[in-house]
Amino acid sequence: MKAIAVYEDGDEPVVIEKPRPAPAPGEALVRTLRVGVDGTDHEVIAGGHGGRPDGEDHMVLGHEAVGVVEDPNDTPFEVGDVVVPTVRRPPNGANEYFARGEPDMAPDGEYHERGIVGAHGFMAEYFTSPAEFLVEIPPELAEWGFLVEPASITEKAIEHAFASRSAFHWEPDSALVLGNGSLGLLTVAMLDSDFDRIYCLGRRERPDPTVDVIESLGATYVNSNDTPVPAVPDAHEPVDFVYEATGYAPHAFESIEALAPNGVGALLGVPGDWEFEIEGGRLHRELVLHNKALVGSVNSGYEHFEAAVESLSGLSEAFLADLVTGVHPLDSFEAAFVDDDTTIKTAVEFAAYEER
Amino acid sequence: MKAIAVYEDGDEPVVIEKPRPAPAPGEALVRTLRVGVDGTDHEVIAGGHGGRPDGEDHMVLGHEAVGVVEDPNDTPFEVGDVVVPTVRRPPNGANEYFARGEPDMAPDGEYHERGIVGAHGFMAEYFTSPAEFLVEIPPELAEWGFLVEPASITEKAIEHAFASRSAFHWEPDSALVLGNGSLGLLTVAMLDSDFDRIYCLGRRERPDPTVDVIESLGATYVNSNDTPVPAVPDAHEPVDFVYEATGYAPHAFESIEALAPNGVGALLGVPGDWEFEIEGGRLHRELVLHNKALVGSVNSGYEHFEAAVESLSGLSEAFLADLVTGVHPLDSFEAAFVDDDTTIKTAVEFAAYEER
Repeated sequence: MKAIAVYEDGDEPVVIEKPRPAPAPGEALVRTLRVGVDGTDHEVIAGGHGGRPDGEDHMVLGHEAVGVVEDPNDTPFEVGDVVVPTVRRPPNGANEYFARGEPDMAPDGEYHERGIVGAHGFMAEYFTSPAEFLVEIPPELAEWGFLVEPASITEKAIEHAFASRSAFHWEPDSALVLGNGSLGLLTVAMLDSDFDRIYCLGRRERPDPTVDVIESLGATYVNSNDTPVPAVPDAHEPVDFVYEATGYAPHAFESIEALAPNGVGALLGVPGDWEFEIEGGRLHRELVLHNKALVGSVNSGYEHFEAAVESLSGLSEAFLADLVTGVHPLDSFEAAFVDDDTTIKTAVEFAAYEER
Repeated sequence: MKAIAVYEDGDEPVVIEKPRPAPAPGEALVRTLRVGVDGTDHEVIAGGHGGRPDGEDHMVLGHEAVGVVEDPNDTPFEVGDVVVPTVRRPPNGANEYFARGEPDMAPDGEYHERGIVGAHGFMAEYFTSPAEFLVEIPPELAEWGFLVEPASITEKAIEHAFASRSAFHWEPDSALVLGNGSLGLLTVAMLDSDFDRIYCLGRRERPDPTVDVIESLGATYVNSNDTPVPAVPDAHEPVDFVYEATGYAPHAFESIEALAPNGVGALLGVPGDWEFEIEGGRLHRELVLHNKALVGSVNSGYEHFEAAVESLSGLSEAFLADLVTGVHPLDSFEAAFVDDDTTIKTAVEFAAYEER
């Protein structure tokens, strides 16, 4: 079968030929439909992320997959079920985090991430997975199923951020999403049902397709060239919830200034090393005197995938069609890895979905 | 009656004569037993904190009080009940935060704090308070009742920090308290029942009475001159919970480095303005990749006072006697405001407790 991989000494993805995997006991064989591309894939390609699987000179890319069960292999699935795989796998048999259904809370060394660190990804015509790491989704979502994984990342971040406000009565009604990449835009759409007013900050000048998407969702675009994060309260309003998906480290700390009293910032970006000055006394004081919180969040668990399926089902086809600017077949997969100002979200299509 | 106040143009507390207050409907009259002194009182004296009550040229100090009901005035209390007053009061009748029993979550302008901002404190022979802001405590705790308020501050911080970890299975067993002041030491004692290993960081060299208290509690003293906060994981271990009570702003951010994966830092210090450099990229990344959180916490609500009474009841008399280095009668009250290396916690005694 064909797969898209990056080699040890390579700096771009290539199509390779691999044997079709055989499901082990407890695993199902899945025929891949589509696999999304995100910033983490670009980091993996650039070699800046985790390691390849042990003993391998290449890594199959892709962690945002959707497929159909080809061979249930005595798992509870049936042929044709549409499934999305979760990303983390226990590296050496089970551990307590996986046993609890919280692989996203496992520390370093207690997990592999398929397509990211230690395990091959899903960009292949077929993949196998233990049944417990496959989430069934409605057939109607088959085409958009590669968005379940990124949506699950947001579900987890929201769950943890809201939990941090659960010791008191909290009725948030304004949110600020930092970042107008695909995850930021998806999050704006997902927050729409819970927040009255949503702002999304980016550094693009109009005209820009992401600004169009933000406005089509009824949210307000904040151009950070005019309105940096600490200026949001004066330019608009202090917000109850900040969702940071930029990886721009000053934003993590500036978000404290954008928050209303009792607000919380969810941090999801993964920046490199960088030293810079902050108004540390004021930020510390703000956190304390106004009961603010910052909550970091990575990856997601099975229940977040289930919540994501629910959330995606509620999003309009029009929004999804705007968000996904390209789904490219395997023979022109390179187009899915182009990242320019007209690209929002892309995927590689390995097979078209056909209802059985 | 006599009261201890600081004048607009004064820089130290003085004893003044004021009329004994008459309880309004719904208020009880309380005879003051003892009132504790903490860092906030020193800030109020230095003029660096909130404002005096409207139209007043002085403010009566004190927010850590215990007293006995002298006149219940048709409230549910009885003469002789031992009570501790909460600190925040609604500035203009009730508001939603007070109505919910969460005055600690009220934003600026929605509260006064007795003895701190906008309202006279409790350092007087008598005070009045609406019954709903008086917490009855067991007579056995009468002598230590002035510790209920500071203990309530810790109860709230712990509640909020733990809430931030409630979305997953979290079993913390190590804690680091930043600050060996009276609140830090009280917190070490309060955490003792929940954590297997507790560290308390200060910058004092031995011999020092706070180090003795830390060690008598079975905790480990960390001298920040030898082991700064980011070095704690290597010198000891990464900790699940950090409690910051120093007001030293770099600690708020460095605490991220001291935390184990999935850990949380509760921030309580109130620093002044101060710009400094941080390893922002690494700290942001740490928060995200290891699911860490920072939770600011200020003040406390009625239920935190109740929890504090419970916690204080469980502490040993020996510890409390070590912690409280001086209880000074009104005629030598100045001694309660001395803050030197032999002082840990002090209080002014307005009347001795006599069981009725």
